[in-house]
Amino acid sequence: MSPITPPLASRLDGLQSSAIRDLLKLTARPEVIGLAGGLPDAQLMPRDRIALAAESALADRARLQYTESAGWGPLREVLAVRESARLGRPVPLEEVFVTHGSQQALSLLAEVLLDPGALVVVEDPAYVGALQVFRAAGARIVSVPLDSEGMRIDALAELLDRGERPAVVHTVSNFHNPRGVTLSPPRRRALAELAERYGFWVIEDDPYGELWFDHPAPEPVASHSPNVIRLSSTSKTLAPTLRTGWMIAPNTVCRAVELLKQGADLCGSALTQQIAADLLADTDWFTAHVDKIRRIYGERAQSLVAALRTRLGARIISTDATGGMFIWVDFTDNTDTIALLPRAIDHGVAFVPGSAFSVSGAERNSMRLCFTTSDTATLTEAVDRLAGSLGE
Amino acid sequence: MSPITPPLASRLDGLQSSAIRDLLKLTARPEVIGLAGGLPDAQLMPRDRIALAAESALADRARLQYTESAGWGPLREVLAVRESARLGRPVPLEEVFVTHGSQQALSLLAEVLLDPGALVVVEDPAYVGALQVFRAAGARIVSVPLDSEGMRIDALAELLDRGERPAVVHTVSNFHNPRGVTLSPPRRRALAELAERYGFWVIEDDPYGELWFDHPAPEPVASHSPNVIRLSSTSKTLAPTLRTGWMIAPNTVCRAVELLKQGADLCGSALTQQIAADLLADTDWFTAHVDKIRRIYGERAQSLVAALRTRLGARIISTDATGGMFIWVDFTDNTDTIALLPRAIDHGVAFVPGSAFSVSGAERNSMRLCFTTSDTATLTEAVDRLAGSLGE
Repeated sequence: MSPITPPLASRLDGLQSSAIRDLLKLTARPEVIGLAGGLPDAQLMPRDRIALAAESALADRARLQYTESAGWGPLREVLAVRESARLGRPVPLEEVFVTHGSQQALSLLAEVLLDPGALVVVEDPAYVGALQVFRAAGARIVSVPLDSEGMRIDALAELLDRGERPAVVHTVSNFHNPRGVTLSPPRRRALAELAERYGFWVIEDDPYGELWFDHPAPEPVASHSPNVIRLSSTSKTLAPTLRTGWMIAPNTVCRAVELLKQGADLCGSALTQQIAADLLADTDWFTAHVDKIRRIYGERAQSLVAALRTRLGARIISTDATGGMFIWVDFTDNTDTIALLPRAIDHGVAFVPGSAFSVSGAERNSMRLCFTTSDTATLTEAVDRLAGSLGE
Repeated sequence: MSPITPPLASRLDGLQSSAIRDLLKLTARPEVIGLAGGLPDAQLMPRDRIALAAESALADRARLQYTESAGWGPLREVLAVRESARLGRPVPLEEVFVTHGSQQALSLLAEVLLDPGALVVVEDPAYVGALQVFRAAGARIVSVPLDSEGMRIDALAELLDRGERPAVVHTVSNFHNPRGVTLSPPRRRALAELAERYGFWVIEDDPYGELWFDHPAPEPVASHSPNVIRLSSTSKTLAPTLRTGWMIAPNTVCRAVELLKQGADLCGSALTQQIAADLLADTDWFTAHVDKIRRIYGERAQSLVAALRTRLGARIISTDATGGMFIWVDFTDNTDTIALLPRAIDHGVAFVPGSAFSVSGAERNSMRLCFTTSDTATLTEAVDRLAGSLGE
């Protein structure tokens, strides 16, 4: 008799593999210009500086051993200094918790903060990695729309007026994935006020905040209330291989996450955490390094947006190139982007249809384009191909 | 109003911090000889070889990017070859899944295989990291005792006869933590047969199997049935900082774990996984390296056991020095090891009382001693101090 596994079978049904990952497998053909991915550009990752830091880390045998579940001490110290500056208040060490990428923070927070059936409010469209975590936690998910100023706080307030009581509200506050927009300062304050008035947690998921093009991202939502748990990561500024994310949260939350982290994987890698600490502490170098990424991503984003507006004109509304890694395009002429995708791939360009990120099942006339890994000539060519697939 | 967090509060109550970790903090005074820890010896970790592998890994920018959730391909290939030899059957690539230490495999498997209230059978005393995972999963836990041949399969058979139907049976098959014993070959076959007859999964947790002193560990339980999921790791043979564990399991289980891994932390570090792959693939070097650890740990274990038997004689029964990292001592004269611990620390030696690992609340007259990080003179001195604290 083979093992009886109803839980296994039901979990296979209940969980959704990331639509983006599956799509990436289909569009990996070299002749296709891939704007579907969501990866930072490996060519801009500081390989030599990482190699130096690795060598230095490995000079100390303590970096070979298990490390603290909350993260390697000196990394937490560097992060406390950086986050204190970002948040405009002193962040004590016990409020800094290092995770295996910020995805792990999301996953452990869902375990700590959510009972099955608890209400989670997400943005629509949403970061799919967060949706996956909240769905797996058995949360009831309600979405509020985004506009050019980010999450529609008026729609959230309406939910609360109707008596909905979320345990958690999740927002990608800066240069939203997939929607490209940034939550405006007045809405940040309003969100923080609602969190305190109604007693919910905000998870401010901020992997892209450093990647601004013209002017820095606004003060974090977490500057405005202790009810806001802030997540960030080195994956977009240094390299995903470091698997170094972090959470800034009240001590009680950090200690609950610490217990879960011990069960989840004991601790992170002292080697990759020291590399991250080393590079983040070298502030002049780090600033110059991120400035370079900003400049190059900014040029790419602008050329993509310019090509879209030139070639497709009134057929589309595109977000502005303000930061992050993505441009979001809405078709004004009812173009069905799921139907368009195979034609676009035939013309040699790939994107992600907006519906892949949709919570409500809408976004059939939209698409996400990632500009990070293509130069401006390639992006212009990609838009030409896209226009071709549209019969332009 | 601050967030309403009944789930947070209840989870803080429900989870137990690792008793060992808390104890380690108390016994970190430099004048105390620490036999309480459970760490491999950092002095034996191949720092220079790891540094070389890191340099080589970082020559390829692909190692800086996100990697596959199931693990970096070439590492899975090396593991498939090694595990095929170990299991005596060809292990296909889709049955190899890399995790962030084998603790993560335990944690993700608990999510895949267990519904709340499902029965898990563990050994008593048990590996506390496994207990923590199964408790957090809401499993009903029943234990079976160990003797000098490992898990008492007759006691498991009795449970099954009485109608108990476990979803999972967890065993540390080689050089048990904390109990020091190894599951005998006839019991391995009997356990595999019961798993097939009654349709349960066995999780064979094997971090210590390579660390045998006189003769290799027996064929894995996983050699005898596809119902056995095998876990191992490089933490004890190379270095914990690599955070490289793995699971050998049927494809359906690996794919379910893959979906959960995407939500849990997306993927591991391609850098540390390439380092592990590089060192494991260098088979002559790896064999010589592990032989050295075996020889040194073997000498340490033998001198600890010899000192215990010489100084404490009939007051104790100690396990033999056969492999792994731990010696288990039972007092035959009802010595209460929890009461003994503060006296022992006053005499300058620390151990973990057996009750810290006990599922049933027994083991009040036993202790776990870790011999990995002390040389033979220090171990002899430690036993002298222990004898002193006992009034010998």
